[in-house]
Amino acid sequence: MNTVLRAEAEKIIHTAIQAVQPDEAVRRTLKDYQFNTGRKILVAIGKAAWQMAKAAVDTLGQVDCGIVITKYKHVKGEIPNVECCEAGHPIPDENSFASTKKALEMVKGLQPEDTVIFLVSGGGSALFELPLIPGDELQKITLELLHSGANIVELNKIRKRLSSVKAGRFAQACAPAKVLSIVLSDVIGDPLDSIASGPAYPDNSTCEQAKAIVEKYWIHLSPEAAALLDKETPKELHNVETYINGSVKELCAAVAKAAETLGYKPYILTDELCCEASAAGSFLASILKTHARSGQSLAFIAGGETMVRVNGYGSGGRSQELALAAAEGIAGMEGAAIFSFDSDGTDGPTDAAGGYVDGESFAAFEEAGIPYYNMLRENDSYHALESVGGLIMTGPTGTNVNDVAVALLKK
Amino acid sequence: MNTVLRAEAEKIIHTAIQAVQPDEAVRRTLKDYQFNTGRKILVAIGKAAWQMAKAAVDTLGQVDCGIVITKYKHVKGEIPNVECCEAGHPIPDENSFASTKKALEMVKGLQPEDTVIFLVSGGGSALFELPLIPGDELQKITLELLHSGANIVELNKIRKRLSSVKAGRFAQACAPAKVLSIVLSDVIGDPLDSIASGPAYPDNSTCEQAKAIVEKYWIHLSPEAAALLDKETPKELHNVETYINGSVKELCAAVAKAAETLGYKPYILTDELCCEASAAGSFLASILKTHARSGQSLAFIAGGETMVRVNGYGSGGRSQELALAAAEGIAGMEGAAIFSFDSDGTDGPTDAAGGYVDGESFAAFEEAGIPYYNMLRENDSYHALESVGGLIMTGPTGTNVNDVAVALLKK
Repeated sequence: MNTVLRAEAEKIIHTAIQAVQPDEAVRRTLKDYQFNTGRKILVAIGKAAWQMAKAAVDTLGQVDCGIVITKYKHVKGEIPNVECCEAGHPIPDENSFASTKKALEMVKGLQPEDTVIFLVSGGGSALFELPLIPGDELQKITLELLHSGANIVELNKIRKRLSSVKAGRFAQACAPAKVLSIVLSDVIGDPLDSIASGPAYPDNSTCEQAKAIVEKYWIHLSPEAAALLDKETPKELHNVETYINGSVKELCAAVAKAAETLGYKPYILTDELCCEASAAGSFLASILKTHARSGQSLAFIAGGETMVRVNGYGSGGRSQELALAAAEGIAGMEGAAIFSFDSDGTDGPTDAAGGYVDGESFAAFEEAGIPYYNMLRENDSYHALESVGGLIMTGPTGTNVNDVAVALLKK
Repeated sequence: MNTVLRAEAEKIIHTAIQAVQPDEAVRRTLKDYQFNTGRKILVAIGKAAWQMAKAAVDTLGQVDCGIVITKYKHVKGEIPNVECCEAGHPIPDENSFASTKKALEMVKGLQPEDTVIFLVSGGGSALFELPLIPGDELQKITLELLHSGANIVELNKIRKRLSSVKAGRFAQACAPAKVLSIVLSDVIGDPLDSIASGPAYPDNSTCEQAKAIVEKYWIHLSPEAAALLDKETPKELHNVETYINGSVKELCAAVAKAAETLGYKPYILTDELCCEASAAGSFLASILKTHARSGQSLAFIAGGETMVRVNGYGSGGRSQELALAAAEGIAGMEGAAIFSFDSDGTDGPTDAAGGYVDGESFAAFEEAGIPYYNMLRENDSYHALESVGGLIMTGPTGTNVNDVAVALLKK
């Protein structure tokens, strides 16, 4: 491994994650906010829920009651008057359903002068859920969609119609109370109806679109689920005010700034990346190969969310798969590195945030006896990268604004 | 369809193809060449063989004898003393074998003062072939590799070991005569042992590599074929002199220049693109989406050779598949177009050179009743694009220097 490049990668990752923490933005929004005279109920959902709730309660002094629903191992301590719950992600589990039920009870019977402070971050689609079909079937449909290569936008268009809280239905449950929604975006282009499946946002998707996705990926539905796809979602909500806090755009900008500080000329290719993960890795490697002739120190940045078409039974995530696939393309290149990470610190169902490879990695796989192509085919990027020290480990970061891939060329 | 963008795309395609014609380069090389006193035998193979042979004979006045082996419909007339043959591509057929046998007979028993003018262009791997195993088995192995997503470099590492002419074996057959080899490159990075499988170039691939490819793609071999993979190829050749004429680098540069003339700021992302075709299309669409905010007219260029993992029974080629997949990403974008074409004028087993889509195409598919995702899944890019006027038709171009994809943003 090129230890200089690896250290610089870590520096870029650390700096960028710090730059997209939600705390400061939550504080700024709440500090000057003119609340009504009634009660303040806090509902925070998603991977950054605890961090956002903590910042909110610190700013407001206290809330009347509240609930945090976040991913396992993401609660970092107690928050006064707020119950902190952990639940399943990316597949909702019984804890998702039970916590969501509690949140719905908490907002039942509110008055017009009350305010629900609704803090939304990515992951909310799975964590904040009380399905209108049996949990088992919802899990099956979610898994089928994920494994077929559906992206998060498509996945949510289906899930919202099968849910009692998504697609504006939670805001409806809060009425007549006001909902103040603060959103940390993890969906490309920040469509408010898609982030956490838009529990407090009118839904602009249609029954036709939902049915087209089921057709696109050949998903099997029970008659009950099929009937729910035919029920329209609310198209207007009058009790909601929404603020967007941060997104992958800021993440890309933060990576560019960090790379520039280290002497790289940054180039943001896209902050809306949406394609198959391993191919994105190969594409970035192709870019480095051509630009190696330029004799410059360059950083190519592609933020967004890639997809993995699951063929095998290995472990990994889209960032790790992107990095693993890139290793072949930059094999033997001096001063070339490609890494990708999820800003929330967890890539797929693993404890890694992403993966790192450089010009020495391909040979390192061979030395370590790793059957490279087999590992790629089996989607086992975690174990392949682990064997050459290529895992990026950050732990839960407190934020969640999608992924970014970085291709470095050091002259 | 955006007719302005479409017309500009056609202009870029036409100008770029003209810029990479092999004629002038063949003339330049031969004009000043000091031939030995003996006979001049011309052997031209590949998709640009006729064009190159014509330029050579025009320059030299005449040759003593010769043969052109090119793809069907690529012979454009008679050349004095030269037999023009057409044969199968990308799968070699009986005509490939018969013509190659003729070429081998033509160079049998030559003297040291004789010269074989050997004009090599892409496609030569299939067209110039006399296998050491039954033709049927060679076809089966070739198809299996292509359908598994093997790239041309990998495909050729296998084929050269099963052949009596590839990997330097043709130059051995010409000895003691001199071989003057003029090469038009269609392989990324111009590795001479890979272009047309290097009939006149020492082979730097190893038995181990060949066996690794068979493992990578789970290819089934007969014991005879497996034994041939274990036979080493010539590592030195003393009777050959080689000139490279043109490659995808020049194609990318020509596209950049043509785009610039039309008012676009060109950016060559890579001239060594090597990843899955549809993902490359999505990646380019992501780049356009982000840069649309810049308010500039931009042209992003990616040359190389993508791959198609064949799942369905449709028709198409990698350039058409790239374009079709890009349509979703740029749907509804004004002033955005993505097109890709094969410089030889034939993309896959179709009569199209490539595909074009713009911001209006996705809606056009729907209007035309084209089931977009099904067509992508079935690799039926040809019929999908045909229905919205998105096929790029050039006919055989006379050259062959790989593919290029272009993403245009017009302010």
